[in-house]
Amino acid sequence: MTVRLLITGGTFDKVYDELTGKLYFRDTHIHEMLRLGRCRLDLKIRTIMMADSLEMTDSDREVILRNCEKAEEERIVITHGTDTMPETAAVLGKVIKDKTVVLTGAMIPYAFGSSDGLFNLGSALSFVQALPHGVYIAMNGRIFTWDNVRKNRQIGVFEALT
Amino acid sequence: MTVRLLITGGTFDKVYDELTGKLYFRDTHIHEMLRLGRCRLDLKIRTIMMADSLEMTDSDREVILRNCEKAEEERIVITHGTDTMPETAAVLGKVIKDKTVVLTGAMIPYAFGSSDGLFNLGSALSFVQALPHGVYIAMNGRIFTWDNVRKNRQIGVFEALT
Amino acid sequence: MTVRLLITGGTFDKVYDELTGKLYFRDTHIHEMLRLGRCRLDLKIRTIMMADSLEMTDSDREVILRNCEKAEEERIVITHGTDTMPETAAVLGKVIKDKTVVLTGAMIPYAFGSSDGLFNLGSALSFVQALPHGVYIAMNGRIFTWDNVRKNRQIGVFEALT
Amino acid sequence: MTVRLLITGGTFDKVYDELTGKLYFRDTHIHEMLRLGRCRLDLKIRTIMMADSLEMTDSDREVILRNCEKAEEERIVITHGTDTMPETAAVLGKVIKDKTVVLTGAMIPYAFGSSDGLFNLGSALSFVQALPHGVYIAMNGRIFTWDNVRKNRQIGVFEALT
Repeated sequence: MTVRLLITGGTFDKVYDELTGKLYFRDTHIHEMLRLGRCRLDLKIRTIMMADSLEMTDSDREVILRNCEKAEEERIVITHGTDTMPETAAVLGKVIKDKTVVLTGAMIPYAFGSSDGLFNLGSALSFVQALPHGVYIAMNGRIFTWDNVRKNRQIGVFEALT
Repeated sequence: MTVRLLITGGTFDKVYDELTGKLYFRDTHIHEMLRLGRCRLDLKIRTIMMADSLEMTDSDREVILRNCEKAEEERIVITHGTDTMPETAAVLGKVIKDKTVVLTGAMIPYAFGSSDGLFNLGSALSFVQALPHGVYIAMNGRIFTWDNVRKNRQIGVFEALT
Repeated sequence: MTVRLLITGGTFDKVYDELTGKLYFRDTHIHEMLRLGRCRLDLKIRTIMMADSLEMTDSDREVILRNCEKAEEERIVITHGTDTMPETAAVLGKVIKDKTVVLTGAMIPYAFGSSDGLFNLGSALSFVQALPHGVYIAMNGRIFTWDNVRKNRQIGVFEALT
Repeated sequence: MTVRLLITGGTFDKVYDELTGKLYFRDTHIHEMLRLGRCRLDLKIRTIMMADSLEMTDSDREVILRNCEKAEEERIVITHGTDTMPETAAVLGKVIKDKTVVLTGAMIPYAFGSSDGLFNLGSALSFVQALPHGVYIAMNGRIFTWDNVRKNRQIGVFEALT
């Protein structure tokens, strides 16, 4: 089984610029994370953007949708900023019916020792192998369908609407 | 959904004793790992032993089996040393037919920065929610059924027999 | 020998706010760092402010100076943001002649796995014990006197003026 | 100022072998540690052995002594296992009178997230620049002369004899 892994940026991949004191994107940490997890899945990895999800536009979401549609693989994991992950999931969920797509991200940059990123990546790569077709969000060790999820920004966790 | 989490020791939970220079067990790191993963699953956690899997006896495996059988939860994750994980999975797999049980572990102690433990824990907790009844091993980002798995000790990875 | 340790904030102590995605100050990491370093020096630790050094005012520097002057200890380490560390060192250096004062900081927050903070703290606490009276900056494994140092912001390192 | 850095092994450089579950030596971590510390000292680094200090022989200590004697640099840091660090310091201290030599090590392997190695390395590289000729041990943020130090193995710290 081959899994397509699409990188779109998000907190996952932010690093600290020691010259400016700002957080920014450089390269994805996904390869290092997969090595750490001793991951032996057959993966096809593609970085399609490096965006802060608060700044993602409709056309960015179109690009993500196109990438899912044209992927030959039936199973797709997308790393994504948490702030608008439900919005992107909704764009995908309304269209994609014949693939299993799981979005995940991190509350803390992977480059920080205390990141949830490795846990979430392990989770998303597992759910995507086991779940039926549909679009999902894997966060906090849980799985949500695209049409029943929101990020609770007060406490920084994902939860079902109903 | 409630998941039962059984701790049996293994590399996962080894720490370095700075007085003797030896690796040993103290407490489980599972609570810290779940906190790091911002895990919000409803979990019932029980430490049933703290054993090096190379030293596990038949009666240890009986204890693990009893704990699975008497658990009220239908979904169970077991942290276990990697060396004899397939043996324990076989003991469980021959008996348990009405629950989903996923064993996982780590190649490197969690207390080491470079551990695969957090990735594997995220993986096991996800597979256990999504898979049908049966006994499985979740390692290397992959899932194996109890009757078709071995640890390849030359290269330190899990693989299917056939 | 007792060393006075004054905390003023800086990158050292920044943490990532997972609700806002911003870096901010919470508590100092100095106690955790000293524990990690198995430090057995007799230390008197006081947090006098938690400031980004770019936002430090003249009156902040007066507060730091007063704290150095009134300290009973002859040896003082100050953790400080790197951006204006030379400015603060100059304020102290012109006045303090009968104590050994060493400023240090970090290019990367300690909470990031890749921080130079622990190395710099070990360095500053050692120089302060061994150097004659004066005001110094300990960064990059080197020691600079307050009147011959600048931060090269292009490459993010400290260097002597002459 | 150039500092000679001699690597002899010790806990500092132990890594975890995931195939055997044993700790062993591979390469030194010193280069990675110096990079992390953004160290800009002029260093000449040489690995002269990779030994567990409990297994060091008289002839090993002769090799270390020869390396100190023939080094052109007046300032030398030696990374060394903690268990017999005072013994090696004594061998050096009785002979070397015209150089500053500082031994240091770690209670926890650097590859573990919780190592004191980076703190100790920062400390040793600083003391060596500031102290007069003599042979010293830098551990626990403190400095000891070779003829007044022991490792208290009950609590895992270095202390003065008198």
